[in-house]
Amino acid sequence: MSNRVSTNLGSNEMDVINNSSSRRSSESLPYVHKVGVPPKQNLLKEIAGTVKETFFADDPLRNFKDQSKSRKLVLGFQAIFPIFEWGRNYSLSKFKGDFIAGLTIASLCIPQDIGYASLANLAPQYGLYSSFVPPLVYAFMGSSRDIAIGPVAVVSLLLGSLLQDEIDPNKNPVDYLRLAFTATFFAGITQVTLGFLRLGFLIDFLSHAAIVGFMAGAAVTIALQQLKGLLGIKKFTKNTDIVSVMRSVWGSVHHGWNWQTILIGVSFLAFLLVAKYIGKKKKKLFWVPAIAPLISVFLSTFFVYITRADKHGVKIVNHIRKGINPPSVDEIFFSGQYLAKGFRIGLVAGMIALTEAVAIGRTFASMKDYQLDGNKEMVALGTMNIVGSMTSCYVATGSFSRSAVNYMAGCNTAVSNIVMSTAVFLTLKFITPLFKYTPNAILSSIIISAVIGLIDFEAVCLIWKIDKFDFVACMGAFFGVVFSSVEIGLLIAVSISFAKILLQVTRPRTAILGKLPRTTVYRNILQYPDATKVPGILIVRVDSAIYFSNSNYVKERILRWLADEEENLKEHSRPRIQYLIVEMSPVTDIDTSGIHALEELFRSLEKRDIKLVLANPGPVVVDKLHASKFQELIGEDRIFLTVADAVMTCAPKLELDP
Amino acid sequence: MSNRVSTNLGSNEMDVINNSSSRRSSESLPYVHKVGVPPKQNLLKEIAGTVKETFFADDPLRNFKDQSKSRKLVLGFQAIFPIFEWGRNYSLSKFKGDFIAGLTIASLCIPQDIGYASLANLAPQYGLYSSFVPPLVYAFMGSSRDIAIGPVAVVSLLLGSLLQDEIDPNKNPVDYLRLAFTATFFAGITQVTLGFLRLGFLIDFLSHAAIVGFMAGAAVTIALQQLKGLLGIKKFTKNTDIVSVMRSVWGSVHHGWNWQTILIGVSFLAFLLVAKYIGKKKKKLFWVPAIAPLISVFLSTFFVYITRADKHGVKIVNHIRKGINPPSVDEIFFSGQYLAKGFRIGLVAGMIALTEAVAIGRTFASMKDYQLDGNKEMVALGTMNIVGSMTSCYVATGSFSRSAVNYMAGCNTAVSNIVMSTAVFLTLKFITPLFKYTPNAILSSIIISAVIGLIDFEAVCLIWKIDKFDFVACMGAFFGVVFSSVEIGLLIAVSISFAKILLQVTRPRTAILGKLPRTTVYRNILQYPDATKVPGILIVRVDSAIYFSNSNYVKERILRWLADEEENLKEHSRPRIQYLIVEMSPVTDIDTSGIHALEELFRSLEKRDIKLVLANPGPVVVDKLHASKFQELIGEDRIFLTVADAVMTCAPKLELDP
Repeated sequence: MSNRVSTNLGSNEMDVINNSSSRRSSESLPYVHKVGVPPKQNLLKEIAGTVKETFFADDPLRNFKDQSKSRKLVLGFQAIFPIFEWGRNYSLSKFKGDFIAGLTIASLCIPQDIGYASLANLAPQYGLYSSFVPPLVYAFMGSSRDIAIGPVAVVSLLLGSLLQDEIDPNKNPVDYLRLAFTATFFAGITQVTLGFLRLGFLIDFLSHAAIVGFMAGAAVTIALQQLKGLLGIKKFTKNTDIVSVMRSVWGSVHHGWNWQTILIGVSFLAFLLVAKYIGKKKKKLFWVPAIAPLISVFLSTFFVYITRADKHGVKIVNHIRKGINPPSVDEIFFSGQYLAKGFRIGLVAGMIALTEAVAIGRTFASMKDYQLDGNKEMVALGTMNIVGSMTSCYVATGSFSRSAVNYMAGCNTAVSNIVMSTAVFLTLKFITPLFKYTPNAILSSIIISAVIGLIDFEAVCLIWKIDKFDFVACMGAFFGVVFSSVEIGLLIAVSISFAKILLQVTRPRTAILGKLPRTTVYRNILQYPDATKVPGILIVRVDSAIYFSNSNYVKERILRWLADEEENLKEHSRPRIQYLIVEMSPVTDIDTSGIHALEELFRSLEKRDIKLVLANPGPVVVDKLHASKFQELIGEDRIFLTVADAVMTCAPKLELDP
Repeated sequence: MSNRVSTNLGSNEMDVINNSSSRRSSESLPYVHKVGVPPKQNLLKEIAGTVKETFFADDPLRNFKDQSKSRKLVLGFQAIFPIFEWGRNYSLSKFKGDFIAGLTIASLCIPQDIGYASLANLAPQYGLYSSFVPPLVYAFMGSSRDIAIGPVAVVSLLLGSLLQDEIDPNKNPVDYLRLAFTATFFAGITQVTLGFLRLGFLIDFLSHAAIVGFMAGAAVTIALQQLKGLLGIKKFTKNTDIVSVMRSVWGSVHHGWNWQTILIGVSFLAFLLVAKYIGKKKKKLFWVPAIAPLISVFLSTFFVYITRADKHGVKIVNHIRKGINPPSVDEIFFSGQYLAKGFRIGLVAGMIALTEAVAIGRTFASMKDYQLDGNKEMVALGTMNIVGSMTSCYVATGSFSRSAVNYMAGCNTAVSNIVMSTAVFLTLKFITPLFKYTPNAILSSIIISAVIGLIDFEAVCLIWKIDKFDFVACMGAFFGVVFSSVEIGLLIAVSISFAKILLQVTRPRTAILGKLPRTTVYRNILQYPDATKVPGILIVRVDSAIYFSNSNYVKERILRWLADEEENLKEHSRPRIQYLIVEMSPVTDIDTSGIHALEELFRSLEKRDIKLVLANPGPVVVDKLHASKFQELIGEDRIFLTVADAVMTCAPKLELDP
């Protein structure tokens, strides 16, 4: 027997025969490489290590190491204001790219801003304000080179629906506006705090799948909202769920709709969509969809102006306040009942804005392959919103669509944001009156054509293919937003994401291993049908850290594997199981409950006269097995470097009477 | 070069040369065993599998398989009432053990019950009631053979403090009592529901460490509460935190204390502790501490009776209602404001009671090596509390101390519970009047000596040694209970437990692997200092499933490993890294975010002209790599069965100019 095995595992035996750092494993012949025990590090080091990995995983102070005091100061300053780092080798050629990109996104953002403001139930100028100040601030503090800052559809919608739950924007516009600034302020505070406390990883708890679903849902909701402007409906529901929207659309079909409005809206929508299509087909023509909105605004405005269509019930923007952002510091509620509400709304809006911005930042950073410090990014975004809240802006963040345009237009640095905000500044200063006759219908069609891009079918299909659970999260978020409200959708998304994590740690996978023919490798027999079990030995792999949340399950699952195995061995009257080898490679950590579970496992195996053997426990696990004296309990010679070693040592000792 | 490597890894090569199930990996010579792709299973199967593992992990219907209808019916009946299963081969010899054990725990529980009732601010008889009905119900439905059912200190305290937050037991005793029954009812409902929906695993989220801390804290709090009775203090604080208790103790030192009471209390406390000590020393004398309480009750009662010490301010029980449990169905609040409150309190108390009972059940089950169906157990406990709530009982569960005594007294089945409840029945029927002169001081000392056992120093030390994070949870729970309140302590315990899980999934471990001398095994170089890196190749292992919560971290961590490595290679002007091998063995699962992270990693490596290679992805991961076309992206020949294979294939292709 021993012979057969040794030829079988000869390879490995050969390895270990003349193995320097090996020890005689009790009574059995073959030598095996000893399982390493990591150098004992003191408590403080340990804790420091954990803290570092948790909060400073990206090692932000790396280039501060061994530098002079003054240098450190400069570096610190540059860390807060990256513009002084990359600005020093900024060139004209770079500026050319930035200039073109800046103008392009400006032409895209101006009409969008006016529209998005209405999603937040705010006057059009506040959209433009939010594209003026925040981008400037970001340009100085932000570290992403491609992100385009400004108001975005989803956040505007979220903010709007959260705010109007508290105050009716029509009945009490003043307080509504003040609450909006308050929320913006606290959104900024939230973002800065998260970044400063290096809690950036918190936003990772909103899974990609959930975001896809949430975005798609928001897009649909926003598009539906636009039916008001597109069909020229006068009285429209406050709710955002599809049911009540559809009801108020059909309700007003006979008396509420206005054909002139529909004509303008639909025709220009068609124009925009065609432009979008062209942009998709020919990457070189990216600028077509980029400037299409502004063109259609001018055309439609001119058209309305000459036909005086507004006299025939075509709603127009009518008035946009001229001039740049007025200060709004003393408008913010720093006390009273609205303080708490503002904080709550700001927290939610801030988190979502953050999620979107960071997602964008990461995407383009990895496309151009430069590092992005998530936490620093958050501080930048936060500061920009705090400043914004004091200059009549509402929550701004990175826009998917505009950033993409920015990237394709060949931006090189955040200067493109400066160019854009300058363009917006000029608009505010001089040409806002021109928007007087701009029909709302056009804004609606611009918004629709913009948000359509947020629905990502490919991603959904991929999610479905890759991970069903993710798909559930995705759909949950989507339907939550569409059929109930943005908040509900968000809630569903987050809770499903968490449920997944908890499920993962409560019910880890376990597998029976078999030996691959002519190798010393043991693998899951379900994955490798040609893997063969070793008679008399059951090899189980546990695929997760063993924690209190799963320790009991793991124990019972292993015992169940054993029971099943013994059952079908009886049927075929094969030799009974005498060794249970637990492959610990994936067991990255174990806690007190886990140790207890192992002890209980050991006991119940003892009663069955089966020996427990461990293979390849990791550093942390080995540590804890030592600390808990578990090693002494099962015997030093029961822990091996590899499954192969374990089998090699156990197999010869099998008593071969069934 | 290839030569050096092949001799180096000769062993493994020898294995794979004549490997039947192997394929020619593109252009490179050595054959390697192909990475297995698990048989594609359809969606429904997949989902069914997940559901099964999550909710029916213990495979409860196992022995229902291929049985006749009638047989199934019988089995089902026996499943609900296990007594009809083990009862059929119950013998006199077994009964002898159960009888003795039953009497022992009865003698222990009667005085305890009277005391514990006061912890819940209830009249003494309710303690006894709760030791009469629930044990009977459990005996029929429960599957644990050693657990002793009845009121327990911690739950009584918890219930008491939760209830008196709602209703003042002195001002409004009637409603207080009714709310207690309501809470008990809903505690039962909670337990049954959890068991029935097979959500038993939820209680696993309270970690062992947290429980240890919570129990110790509760013990201290309870002991402190007893100072009232022990010192004969008249007016005592309602709060349970150590500060306010100590204040009211010292506040009453001059006028409030009663020396006779102290004399009785302290002397008998000493007696009880000595008895406990004896029991600890000599396992055979376990019965000494078991009957000591009853003895001291009789002695002290007799003493007070003859000396009429109650005339000198020694508080006595005075009156215990004679006769068995009156029905209390119509006392339960099934409507009104107290319904919700009762439900909330019941939920908490029920969960805690469950945790304690299941913990005990499991402990003894593994000691005697019999299986325990947690969910079935919950249904039993729940039913027993529902019935209890209708027969004037408050929440009952398994008691640590009494179960231990039960076990040592040689119980064989749940019959010992029947014996105990019969003894309690007789007590209620005939001898309650005898307790008239029992001094409260004695009850206090009995409780103190009982709860001391809940403080488990060894466990705390072990936790400290094994897992620092667990220790924090433990201490958090402890201090939370001692310095604030039971609820707060519980809250802290749970939240720390969760924080741990989240931390685990957000910041998984990663490690650099090296080759162990004279083996084909690659291990963490921190754990195995003699492991050597392969020049030009960096091998990183990721120690967790790659999910949305950690995908981004994992990507950046790997890139950081790379950066560090390249830095110190430059210093020593060694050949640059050309291959990055990611050992995927511990990566048990991956989701869409994870796939994205891998793609991003691949891209940024490409830019650095480094090739990404994967080693040993598990079945699920392989599936998803296929589904997401990632395999095509990096190339089929970039995924290997083992790190050894990967190195063997990559090493010869290295360009060796630094």
